[in-house]
Amino acid sequence: MERPLILATNDDGILAPGLAALVDVVKSLGEVIVVAPDSPQSGKGHAITIDQPLRINEVEAFGAIKAYECSGTPVDCVKLAMNVIKKDRPFDLCVSGINHGSNASINIIYSGTLSAAMEASLEGVKSIGFSLLDYAFDADFRPSQPFIRQICQRVLDSDLGQSKLLNVNIPVGTIRGIKVCRQAEARWVEEFQQGTDPRGKHYYWLTGRFEDGSAEEDTDLKALEEGYISMVPSMHDLTHYSALQELKDFENIGI
Amino acid sequence: MERPLILATNDDGILAPGLAALVDVVKSLGEVIVVAPDSPQSGKGHAITIDQPLRINEVEAFGAIKAYECSGTPVDCVKLAMNVIKKDRPFDLCVSGINHGSNASINIIYSGTLSAAMEASLEGVKSIGFSLLDYAFDADFRPSQPFIRQICQRVLDSDLGQSKLLNVNIPVGTIRGIKVCRQAEARWVEEFQQGTDPRGKHYYWLTGRFEDGSAEEDTDLKALEEGYISMVPSMHDLTHYSALQELKDFENIGI
Repeated sequence: MERPLILATNDDGILAPGLAALVDVVKSLGEVIVVAPDSPQSGKGHAITIDQPLRINEVEAFGAIKAYECSGTPVDCVKLAMNVIKKDRPFDLCVSGINHGSNASINIIYSGTLSAAMEASLEGVKSIGFSLLDYAFDADFRPSQPFIRQICQRVLDSDLGQSKLLNVNIPVGTIRGIKVCRQAEARWVEEFQQGTDPRGKHYYWLTGRFEDGSAEEDTDLKALEEGYISMVPSMHDLTHYSALQELKDFENIGI
Repeated sequence: MERPLILATNDDGILAPGLAALVDVVKSLGEVIVVAPDSPQSGKGHAITIDQPLRINEVEAFGAIKAYECSGTPVDCVKLAMNVIKKDRPFDLCVSGINHGSNASINIIYSGTLSAAMEASLEGVKSIGFSLLDYAFDADFRPSQPFIRQICQRVLDSDLGQSKLLNVNIPVGTIRGIKVCRQAEARWVEEFQQGTDPRGKHYYWLTGRFEDGSAEEDTDLKALEEGYISMVPSMHDLTHYSALQELKDFENIGI
Protein backbone atom coordinates (compact mmCIF):
# COMPACT_ATOMS: atom_id res chain seq x y z
CA MET A 1 0.00 0.00 0.00
CA GLU A 2 1.22 3.48 -0.85
CA ARG A 3 2.21 5.64 2.08
CA PRO A 4 0.05 8.74 2.59
CA LEU A 5 1.32 11.81 0.74
CA ILE A 6 1.66 14.79 3.07
CA LEU A 7 2.24 18.43 2.13
CA ALA A 8 3.96 20.54 4.77
CA THR A 9 3.97 24.32 4.54
CA ASN A 10 3.86 27.42 6.72
CA ASP A 11 3.97 31.21 6.64
CA ASP A 12 7.04 31.89 8.75
CA GLY A 13 9.28 30.71 5.93
CA ILE A 14 11.10 27.51 5.06
CA LEU A 15 13.78 27.98 7.71
CA ALA A 16 11.43 28.57 10.64
CA PRO A 17 11.99 26.10 13.50
CA GLY A 18 8.22 25.56 13.75
CA LEU A 19 8.18 23.98 10.28
CA ALA A 20 11.11 21.76 11.17
CA ALA A 21 9.27 20.65 14.31
CA LEU A 22 6.18 19.85 12.24
CA VAL A 23 8.10 17.91 9.59
CA ASP A 24 9.82 16.02 12.36
CA VAL A 25 6.41 14.82 13.55
CA VAL A 26 4.77 13.91 10.25
CA LYS A 27 7.73 12.28 8.52
CA SER A 28 6.94 8.97 10.18
CA LEU A 29 3.30 9.10 9.00
CA GLY A 30 3.87 9.19 5.26
CA GLU A 31 5.84 10.60 2.36
CA VAL A 32 6.35 14.27 3.16
CA ILE A 33 6.96 17.07 0.68
CA VAL A 34 7.79 20.51 2.01
CA VAL A 35 6.76 23.52 -0.08
CA ALA A 36 7.17 26.74 1.88
CA PRO A 37 7.83 30.45 1.31
CA ASP A 38 11.44 31.56 0.87
CA SER A 39 10.80 34.48 3.23
CA PRO A 40 8.51 35.21 6.17
CA GLN A 41 4.91 35.68 5.03
CA SER A 42 3.07 36.32 8.27
CA GLY A 43 -0.17 38.25 7.93
CA LYS A 44 -0.51 37.55 4.22
CA GLY A 45 -3.98 36.09 4.67
CA HIS A 46 -5.31 34.45 1.53
CA ALA A 47 -3.19 36.57 -0.79
CA ILE A 48 -2.15 35.12 -4.14
CA THR A 49 0.46 36.49 -6.53
CA ILE A 50 -1.01 37.39 -9.89
CA ASP A 51 1.13 40.33 -11.04
CA GLN A 52 4.52 38.63 -10.80
CA PRO A 53 6.10 35.32 -11.78
CA LEU A 54 6.82 32.79 -9.07
CA ARG A 55 10.06 30.87 -8.51
CA ILE A 56 10.66 27.42 -7.10
CA ASN A 57 13.98 26.12 -5.79
CA GLU A 58 14.60 22.64 -4.47
CA VAL A 59 16.50 22.94 -1.20
CA GLU A 60 18.15 20.53 1.23
CA ALA A 61 16.86 21.64 4.58
CA PHE A 62 15.08 18.56 5.86
CA GLY A 63 17.53 15.70 5.35
CA ALA A 64 16.13 13.09 2.98
CA ILE A 65 12.77 14.85 2.64
CA LYS A 66 12.02 16.64 -0.62
CA ALA A 67 11.71 20.36 0.03
CA TYR A 68 11.06 23.40 -2.14
CA GLU A 69 11.17 27.09 -1.36
CA CYS A 70 8.85 29.38 -3.33
CA SER A 71 8.92 33.10 -3.87
CA GLY A 72 5.21 33.69 -3.27
CA THR A 73 2.68 33.62 -0.48
CA PRO A 74 1.65 30.57 1.55
CA VAL A 75 -1.39 30.11 -0.71
CA ASP A 76 0.87 30.31 -3.78
CA CYS A 77 3.00 27.54 -2.24
CA VAL A 78 0.00 25.25 -1.96
CA LYS A 79 -1.12 25.98 -5.52
CA LEU A 80 2.41 25.29 -6.81
CA ALA A 81 2.67 22.12 -4.74
CA MET A 82 -0.55 20.73 -6.17
CA ASN A 83 -0.28 21.93 -9.75
CA VAL A 84 3.44 21.94 -10.53
CA ILE A 85 5.57 20.08 -7.99
CA LYS A 86 3.34 17.07 -7.33
CA LYS A 87 0.62 17.04 -9.92
CA ASP A 88 0.69 13.31 -10.52
CA ARG A 89 -0.89 12.33 -7.23
CA PRO A 90 -3.24 14.15 -4.82
CA PHE A 91 -2.08 14.90 -1.28
CA ASP A 92 -3.76 12.95 1.52
CA LEU A 93 -3.06 15.61 4.11
CA CYS A 94 -1.79 19.17 4.27
CA VAL A 95 -0.19 20.40 7.49
CA SER A 96 0.70 24.06 7.91
CA GLY A 97 2.83 25.51 10.70
CA ILE A 98 3.78 25.08 13.40
CA ASN A 99 3.12 28.80 13.46
CA HIS A 100 5.19 30.91 15.81
CA GLY A 101 2.25 32.61 17.54
CA SER A 102 -1.50 32.23 17.93
CA ASN A 103 -3.93 31.86 15.08
CA ALA A 104 -6.94 31.50 17.34
CA SER A 105 -10.10 33.54 16.96
CA ILE A 106 -10.09 36.26 14.29
CA ASN A 107 -6.40 35.63 13.54
CA ILE A 108 -7.55 32.91 11.15
CA ILE A 109 -8.43 35.49 8.52
CA TYR A 110 -5.06 37.28 8.64
CA SER A 111 -2.96 34.15 8.90
CA GLY A 112 -0.94 32.85 5.98
CA THR A 113 -0.57 29.56 7.84
CA LEU A 114 -4.31 28.98 8.02
CA SER A 115 -4.93 30.35 4.55
CA ALA A 116 -2.47 27.81 3.13
CA ALA A 117 -4.37 25.04 4.91
CA MET A 118 -7.67 26.45 3.68
CA GLU A 119 -6.39 26.51 0.10
CA ALA A 120 -5.59 22.80 0.29
CA SER A 121 -8.99 22.10 1.84
CA LEU A 122 -10.67 23.90 -1.08
CA GLU A 123 -9.20 21.18 -3.25
CA GLY A 124 -10.66 18.50 -1.00
CA VAL A 125 -7.44 17.77 0.88
CA LYS A 126 -7.79 17.29 4.64
CA SER A 127 -5.84 20.15 6.14
CA ILE A 128 -4.66 21.25 9.54
CA GLY A 129 -3.11 24.54 10.60
CA PHE A 130 -1.02 24.23 13.78
CA SER A 131 0.02 27.23 15.85
CA LEU A 132 1.85 27.53 19.16
CA LEU A 133 1.04 30.47 21.42
CA ASP A 134 4.65 31.62 21.46
CA TYR A 135 5.95 34.17 18.96
CA ALA A 136 9.60 33.52 19.82
CA PHE A 137 11.92 32.18 17.10
CA ASP A 138 13.32 29.69 19.62
CA ALA A 139 9.94 28.63 21.02
CA ASP A 140 9.84 25.13 22.49
CA PHE A 141 7.70 23.02 20.18
CA ARG A 142 8.49 19.71 21.89
CA PRO A 143 5.50 19.48 24.27
CA SER A 144 3.14 19.94 21.33
CA GLN A 145 4.66 17.26 19.12
CA PRO A 146 3.04 14.12 20.63
CA PHE A 147 -0.39 15.76 20.31
CA ILE A 148 0.25 16.88 16.74
CA ARG A 149 1.34 13.39 15.86
CA GLN A 150 -1.86 11.84 17.23
CA ILE A 151 -4.09 14.45 15.61
CA CYS A 152 -2.44 13.91 12.21
CA GLN A 153 -2.64 10.14 12.53
CA ARG A 154 -6.33 10.29 13.36
CA VAL A 155 -7.05 12.70 10.51
CA LEU A 156 -5.22 10.41 8.09
CA ASP A 157 -7.31 7.48 9.35
CA SER A 158 -10.68 9.25 9.09
CA ASP A 159 -12.63 11.17 6.47
CA LEU A 160 -13.12 14.13 8.84
CA GLY A 161 -16.78 14.52 7.87
CA GLN A 162 -18.03 17.90 6.73
CA SER A 163 -15.10 20.13 7.64
CA LYS A 164 -11.85 19.50 5.82
CA LEU A 165 -10.03 22.28 7.67
CA LEU A 166 -8.95 22.26 11.31
CA ASN A 167 -7.54 25.30 13.08
CA VAL A 168 -5.45 23.88 15.92
CA ASN A 169 -3.85 26.18 18.48
CA ILE A 170 -1.56 24.96 21.23
CA PRO A 171 -0.96 26.59 24.61
CA VAL A 172 2.47 27.07 26.11
CA GLY A 173 3.37 24.91 29.08
CA THR A 174 1.53 21.84 30.31
CA ILE A 175 -1.15 20.68 27.88
CA ARG A 176 -4.30 19.38 29.57
CA GLY A 177 -5.88 17.86 26.47
CA ILE A 178 -7.88 18.87 23.40
CA LYS A 179 -11.13 20.84 23.11
CA VAL A 180 -13.21 20.93 19.93
CA CYS A 181 -14.65 24.42 19.92
CA ARG A 182 -15.76 27.45 17.96
CA GLN A 183 -13.85 30.57 16.94
CA ALA A 184 -14.01 33.24 19.63
CA GLU A 185 -15.26 36.71 18.80
CA ALA A 186 -12.28 38.96 19.45
CA ARG A 187 -10.44 41.74 17.69
CA TRP A 188 -7.20 43.59 17.24
CA VAL A 189 -7.04 47.14 18.51
CA GLU A 190 -4.70 48.92 16.15
CA GLU A 191 -2.08 51.33 17.26
CA PHE A 192 -0.03 52.67 14.37
CA GLN A 193 3.46 53.59 15.42
CA GLN A 194 4.32 56.83 13.66
CA GLY A 195 7.75 58.08 12.78
CA THR A 196 9.99 59.82 10.28
CA ASP A 197 12.29 57.85 8.05
CA PRO A 198 15.96 58.70 7.28
CA ARG A 199 14.79 60.78 4.31
CA GLY A 200 12.41 62.85 6.40
CA LYS A 201 9.25 61.18 5.17
CA HIS A 202 6.46 60.30 7.57
CA TYR A 203 5.51 56.67 8.06
CA TYR A 204 2.96 54.54 9.91
CA TRP A 205 3.83 51.09 11.17
CA LEU A 206 1.04 48.69 12.05
CA THR A 207 1.02 47.36 15.56
CA GLY A 208 -1.72 46.60 18.03
CA ARG A 209 -2.96 44.51 20.86
CA PHE A 210 -5.34 41.62 20.81
CA GLU A 211 -8.56 42.23 22.71
CA ASP A 212 -10.62 39.24 23.71
CA GLY A 213 -14.12 40.62 23.80
CA SER A 214 -15.56 37.25 24.60
CA ALA A 215 -15.56 35.46 27.92
CA GLU A 216 -17.87 32.87 26.42
CA GLU A 217 -17.61 29.15 26.83
CA ASP A 218 -16.90 26.74 23.97
CA THR A 219 -14.46 29.10 22.26
CA ASP A 220 -10.88 28.56 21.24
CA LEU A 221 -9.62 31.40 23.40
CA LYS A 222 -11.33 29.93 26.45
CA ALA A 223 -9.91 26.46 25.81
CA LEU A 224 -6.39 27.86 25.41
CA GLU A 225 -6.73 29.94 28.55
CA GLU A 226 -7.54 26.77 30.45
CA GLY A 227 -4.50 24.94 29.07
CA TYR A 228 -6.19 22.93 26.35
CA ILE A 229 -5.33 22.63 22.68
CA SER A 230 -8.17 24.24 20.70
CA MET A 231 -9.46 22.58 17.56
CA VAL A 232 -11.91 24.59 15.43
CA PRO A 233 -13.45 22.92 12.38
CA SER A 234 -13.46 25.71 9.82
CA MET A 235 -14.82 26.49 6.38
CA HIS A 236 -14.55 28.73 3.36
CA ASP A 237 -18.27 29.36 2.98
CA LEU A 238 -18.62 32.82 4.49
CA THR A 239 -22.41 33.04 3.99
CA HIS A 240 -24.16 34.32 7.09
CA TYR A 241 -27.03 31.87 6.73
CA SER A 242 -29.13 33.09 9.64
CA ALA A 243 -29.04 36.61 8.17
CA LEU A 244 -30.43 35.57 4.76
CA GLN A 245 -34.05 35.97 5.76
CA GLU A 246 -33.49 39.37 7.39
CA LEU A 247 -32.33 40.84 4.10
CA LYS A 248 -35.13 39.59 1.86
CA ASP A 249 -36.57 43.10 1.59
CA PHE A 250 -33.60 44.14 -0.51
CA GLU A 251 -35.15 42.06 -3.28
CA ASN A 252 -37.88 44.69 -3.58
CA ILE A 253 -35.44 47.30 -4.79
CA GLY A 254 -36.22 48.30 -8.33
CA ILE A 255 -35.19 51.24 -10.44
CA MET B 1 -28.07 66.32 12.01
CA GLU B 2 -24.64 65.19 10.90
CA ARG B 3 -24.43 63.61 7.48
CA PRO B 4 -23.42 59.93 7.44
CA LEU B 5 -19.68 59.36 7.21
CA ILE B 6 -18.80 56.99 4.38
CA LEU B 7 -15.46 55.29 3.71
CA ALA B 8 -14.80 54.35 0.09
CA THR B 9 -12.00 51.96 -0.82
CA ASN B 10 -11.14 49.24 -3.32
CA ASP B 11 -8.39 46.87 -4.39
CA ASP B 12 -7.87 47.97 -7.99
CA GLY B 13 -6.14 51.14 -6.81
CA ILE B 14 -7.14 54.73 -6.29
CA LEU B 15 -7.24 55.55 -10.00
CA ALA B 16 -9.50 52.66 -11.03
CA PRO B 17 -12.67 53.82 -12.81
CA GLY B 18 -14.74 51.47 -10.64
CA LEU B 19 -13.85 53.46 -7.54
CA ALA B 20 -14.72 56.72 -9.28
CA ALA B 21 -18.08 55.25 -10.27
CA LEU B 22 -18.72 54.20 -6.67
CA VAL B 23 -17.74 57.57 -5.21
CA ASP B 24 -19.97 59.20 -7.79
CA VAL B 25 -22.91 57.26 -6.35
CA VAL B 26 -22.30 57.65 -2.63
CA LYS B 27 -21.23 61.29 -2.57
CA SER B 28 -24.84 62.42 -2.41
CA LEU B 29 -25.56 60.12 0.55
CA GLY B 30 -23.10 61.56 3.05
CA GLU B 31 -19.59 62.83 3.70
CA VAL B 32 -17.28 60.57 1.74
CA ILE B 33 -13.61 59.90 2.46
CA VAL B 34 -11.63 57.86 -0.03
CA VAL B 35 -8.72 55.78 1.29
CA ALA B 36 -7.45 53.41 -1.36
CA PRO B 37 -4.24 51.63 -2.38
CA ASP B 38 -1.72 53.56 -4.48
CA SER B 39 -1.30 50.52 -6.74
CA PRO B 40 -3.44 47.58 -7.85
CA GLN B 41 -3.91 45.08 -5.02
CA SER B 42 -6.12 42.44 -6.58
CA GLY B 43 -5.88 39.01 -5.01
CA LYS B 44 -4.36 40.31 -1.79
CA GLY B 45 -7.08 38.71 0.32
CA HIS B 46 -6.95 39.73 3.95
CA ALA B 47 -3.23 40.52 3.85
CA ILE B 48 -1.88 43.15 6.21
CA THR B 49 1.55 44.78 6.11
CA ILE B 50 3.53 44.14 9.27
CA ASP B 51 7.12 44.06 8.05
CA GLN B 52 7.20 47.48 6.38
CA PRO B 53 6.10 51.02 7.16
CA LEU B 54 3.03 52.41 5.42
CA ARG B 55 2.69 55.76 3.67
CA ILE B 56 -0.31 58.01 3.24
CA ASN B 57 -0.62 60.81 0.70
CA GLU B 58 -3.57 63.13 0.32
CA VAL B 59 -4.49 63.32 -3.36
CA GLU B 60 -6.90 65.33 -5.45
CA ALA B 61 -8.60 62.76 -7.57
CA PHE B 62 -12.25 63.12 -6.62
CA GLY B 63 -12.96 66.85 -6.82
CA ALA B 64 -13.99 68.25 -3.46
CA ILE B 65 -13.93 64.86 -1.76
CA LYS B 66 -11.07 64.11 0.63
CA ALA B 67 -8.98 61.28 -0.77
CA TYR B 68 -5.85 59.48 0.40
CA GLU B 69 -3.66 56.92 -1.32
CA CYS B 70 -1.87 54.39 0.85
CA SER B 71 1.09 52.16 0.16
CA GLY B 72 -0.37 49.01 1.68
CA THR B 73 -3.08 46.47 1.05
CA PRO B 74 -6.82 47.14 1.01
CA VAL B 75 -7.09 45.96 4.63
CA ASP B 76 -4.23 48.31 5.58
CA CYS B 77 -6.20 51.16 3.97
CA VAL B 78 -9.20 50.46 6.16
CA LYS B 79 -7.07 50.23 9.30
CA LEU B 80 -5.36 53.52 8.43
CA ALA B 81 -8.69 55.18 7.62
CA MET B 82 -10.15 54.23 10.99
CA ASN B 83 -7.12 54.68 13.20
CA VAL B 84 -5.13 57.51 11.62
CA ILE B 85 -7.04 59.47 8.99
CA LYS B 86 -10.46 59.67 10.66
CA LYS B 87 -10.08 58.54 14.22
CA ASP B 88 -12.33 61.20 15.72
CA ARG B 89 -15.58 59.77 14.41
CA PRO B 90 -16.67 56.26 13.42
CA PHE B 91 -17.72 55.55 9.85
CA ASP B 92 -21.41 54.84 9.27
CA LEU B 93 -20.76 52.84 6.11
CA CYS B 94 -17.85 51.36 4.21
CA VAL B 95 -18.18 50.73 0.48
CA SER B 96 -15.50 48.87 -1.42
CA GLY B 97 -15.24 48.60 -5.18
CA ILE B 98 -16.70 48.76 -7.67
CA ASN B 99 -14.39 45.87 -8.41
CA HIS B 100 -13.43 45.26 -12.01
CA GLY B 101 -14.45 41.60 -12.10
CA SER B 102 -16.48 39.09 -10.11
CA ASN B 103 -16.09 38.45 -6.41
CA ALA B 104 -18.89 35.94 -6.28
CA SER B 105 -18.54 32.49 -4.75
CA ILE B 106 -15.07 31.50 -3.50
CA ASN B 107 -13.56 34.72 -4.89
CA ILE B 108 -14.55 36.38 -1.64
CA ILE B 109 -11.57 34.83 0.14
CA TYR B 110 -9.00 36.01 -2.43
CA SER B 111 -10.49 39.44 -2.95
CA GLY B 112 -8.87 42.55 -1.52
CA THR B 113 -12.12 44.41 -2.21
CA LEU B 114 -14.16 42.12 0.00
CA SER B 115 -11.43 41.79 2.62
CA ALA B 116 -11.38 45.58 3.00
CA ALA B 117 -15.14 45.53 3.53
CA MET B 118 -14.79 42.66 5.99
CA GLU B 119 -12.14 44.55 7.94
CA ALA B 120 -14.53 47.48 8.40
CA SER B 121 -17.32 45.10 9.41
CA LEU B 122 -15.05 43.60 12.09
CA GLU B 123 -15.08 47.03 13.68
CA GLY B 124 -18.87 47.09 13.59
CA VAL B 125 -19.17 49.29 10.50
CA LYS B 126 -21.83 48.27 7.98
CA SER B 127 -19.89 47.33 4.87
CA ILE B 128 -20.61 46.45 1.28
CA GLY B 129 -18.28 45.10 -1.37
CA PHE B 130 -19.50 45.84 -4.91
CA SER B 131 -18.17 44.01 -7.97
CA LEU B 132 -19.11 44.14 -11.63
CA LEU B 133 -18.70 41.01 -13.72
CA ASP B 134 -16.43 42.78 -16.20
CA TYR B 135 -12.65 42.74 -15.78
CA ALA B 136 -12.10 45.48 -18.37
CA PHE B 137 -10.52 48.75 -17.26
CA ASP B 138 -13.15 50.63 -19.27
CA ALA B 139 -16.10 48.55 -18.06
CA ASP B 140 -19.45 50.36 -18.12
CA PHE B 141 -20.47 50.89 -14.50
CA ARG B 142 -23.46 53.11 -15.31
CA PRO B 143 -26.24 50.48 -15.33
CA SER B 144 -25.17 49.37 -11.84
CA GLN B 145 -25.15 52.83 -10.27
CA PRO B 146 -28.89 53.29 -9.57
CA PHE B 147 -28.96 49.91 -7.80
CA ILE B 148 -25.84 50.67 -5.79
CA ARG B 149 -27.35 53.96 -4.75
CA GLN B 150 -30.52 52.34 -3.48
CA ILE B 151 -28.68 49.54 -1.70
CA CYS B 152 -26.41 52.03 0.08
CA GLN B 153 -29.32 54.26 1.03
CA ARG B 154 -31.21 51.35 2.50
CA VAL B 155 -28.16 50.07 4.41
CA LEU B 156 -27.61 53.55 5.85
CA ASP B 157 -31.25 53.64 6.94
CA SER B 158 -31.26 50.20 8.59
CA ASP B 159 -29.19 48.34 11.17
CA LEU B 160 -28.67 45.37 8.81
CA GLY B 161 -29.35 42.82 11.56
CA GLN B 162 -26.81 40.07 12.17
CA SER B 163 -24.58 40.41 9.13
CA LYS B 164 -22.63 43.63 8.81
CA LEU B 165 -21.00 42.56 5.53
CA LEU B 166 -22.70 42.27 2.15
CA ASN B 167 -21.01 40.78 -0.88
CA VAL B 168 -22.80 42.33 -3.87
CA ASN B 169 -22.02 41.22 -7.42
CA ILE B 170 -23.53 42.83 -10.47
CA PRO B 171 -24.10 41.21 -13.87
CA VAL B 172 -23.22 42.87 -17.15
CA GLY B 173 -26.13 44.04 -19.29
CA THR B 174 -29.74 44.40 -18.28
CA ILE B 175 -30.24 43.97 -14.53
CA ARG B 176 -33.43 42.12 -13.61
CA GLY B 177 -33.34 42.91 -9.89
CA ILE B 178 -31.66 41.73 -6.68
CA LYS B 179 -31.46 38.26 -5.14
CA VAL B 180 -30.39 37.67 -1.54
CA CYS B 181 -28.53 34.38 -1.70
CA ARG B 182 -25.71 32.19 -0.46
CA GLN B 183 -22.15 31.80 -1.68
CA ALA B 184 -21.92 29.16 -4.41
CA GLU B 185 -19.51 26.27 -4.05
CA ALA B 186 -17.08 26.72 -6.92
CA ARG B 187 -13.34 26.69 -7.46
CA TRP B 188 -10.45 27.90 -9.55
CA VAL B 189 -8.64 25.35 -11.65
CA GLU B 190 -5.04 26.51 -11.71
CA GLU B 191 -2.92 26.48 -14.78
CA PHE B 192 0.55 27.86 -14.18
CA GLN B 193 2.02 29.43 -17.27
CA GLN B 194 5.66 28.42 -17.37
CA GLY B 195 8.47 30.30 -19.04
CA THR B 196 12.05 31.43 -18.94
CA ASP B 197 12.94 34.99 -18.01
CA PRO B 198 15.50 37.22 -19.82
CA ARG B 199 18.22 35.90 -17.48
CA GLY B 200 17.45 32.29 -18.29
CA LYS B 201 15.69 31.49 -15.03
CA HIS B 202 12.53 29.43 -14.97
CA TYR B 203 9.29 30.98 -13.75
CA TYR B 204 5.69 30.04 -13.05
CA TRP B 205 2.88 32.54 -13.50
CA LEU B 206 -0.46 31.89 -11.87
CA THR B 207 -3.45 31.72 -14.15
CA GLY B 208 -6.54 29.60 -14.18
CA ARG B 209 -10.17 29.25 -15.03
CA PHE B 210 -13.16 29.47 -12.77
CA GLU B 211 -15.15 26.28 -12.50
CA ASP B 212 -18.67 26.48 -11.21
CA GLY B 213 -19.19 23.07 -9.64
CA SER B 214 -22.63 24.01 -8.43
CA ALA B 215 -25.82 24.19 -10.42
CA GLU B 216 -27.70 24.70 -7.19
CA GLU B 217 -30.46 27.21 -6.58
CA ASP B 218 -30.18 30.10 -4.14
CA THR B 219 -26.53 30.78 -4.94
CA ASP B 220 -24.84 33.95 -6.09
CA LEU B 221 -23.58 32.34 -9.30
CA LYS B 222 -27.10 31.22 -10.19
CA ALA B 223 -28.58 34.66 -9.53
CA LEU B 224 -25.91 36.33 -11.66
CA GLU B 225 -26.41 33.83 -14.47
CA GLU B 226 -30.09 34.79 -14.50
CA GLY B 227 -29.33 38.50 -14.72
CA TYR B 228 -29.83 39.41 -11.07
CA ILE B 229 -27.56 41.28 -8.70
CA SER B 230 -26.44 38.81 -6.02
CA MET B 231 -26.30 39.90 -2.40
CA VAL B 232 -24.67 37.49 0.05
CA PRO B 233 -24.70 38.38 3.76
CA SER B 234 -21.25 37.30 4.91
CA MET B 235 -19.27 36.83 8.07
CA HIS B 236 -15.83 36.44 9.57
CA ASP B 237 -16.66 33.54 11.85
CA LEU B 238 -15.27 30.58 9.89
CA THR B 239 -16.39 27.96 12.41
CA HIS B 240 -18.03 24.99 10.70
CA TYR B 241 -20.72 24.67 13.37
CA SER B 242 -22.40 21.59 12.02
CA ALA B 243 -19.06 19.76 12.07
CA LEU B 244 -18.36 20.45 15.75
CA GLN B 245 -20.14 17.37 17.00
CA GLU B 246 -18.49 15.07 14.45
CA LEU B 247 -15.07 15.87 15.84
CA LYS B 248 -15.78 15.39 19.54
CA ASP B 249 -13.76 12.16 19.58
CA PHE B 250 -10.59 14.18 19.13
CA GLU B 251 -11.07 15.24 22.74
CA ASN B 252 -10.18 11.70 23.78
CA ILE B 253 -6.64 12.07 22.51
CA GLY B 254 -4.18 11.90 25.36
CA ILE B 255 -0.47 11.29 25.49
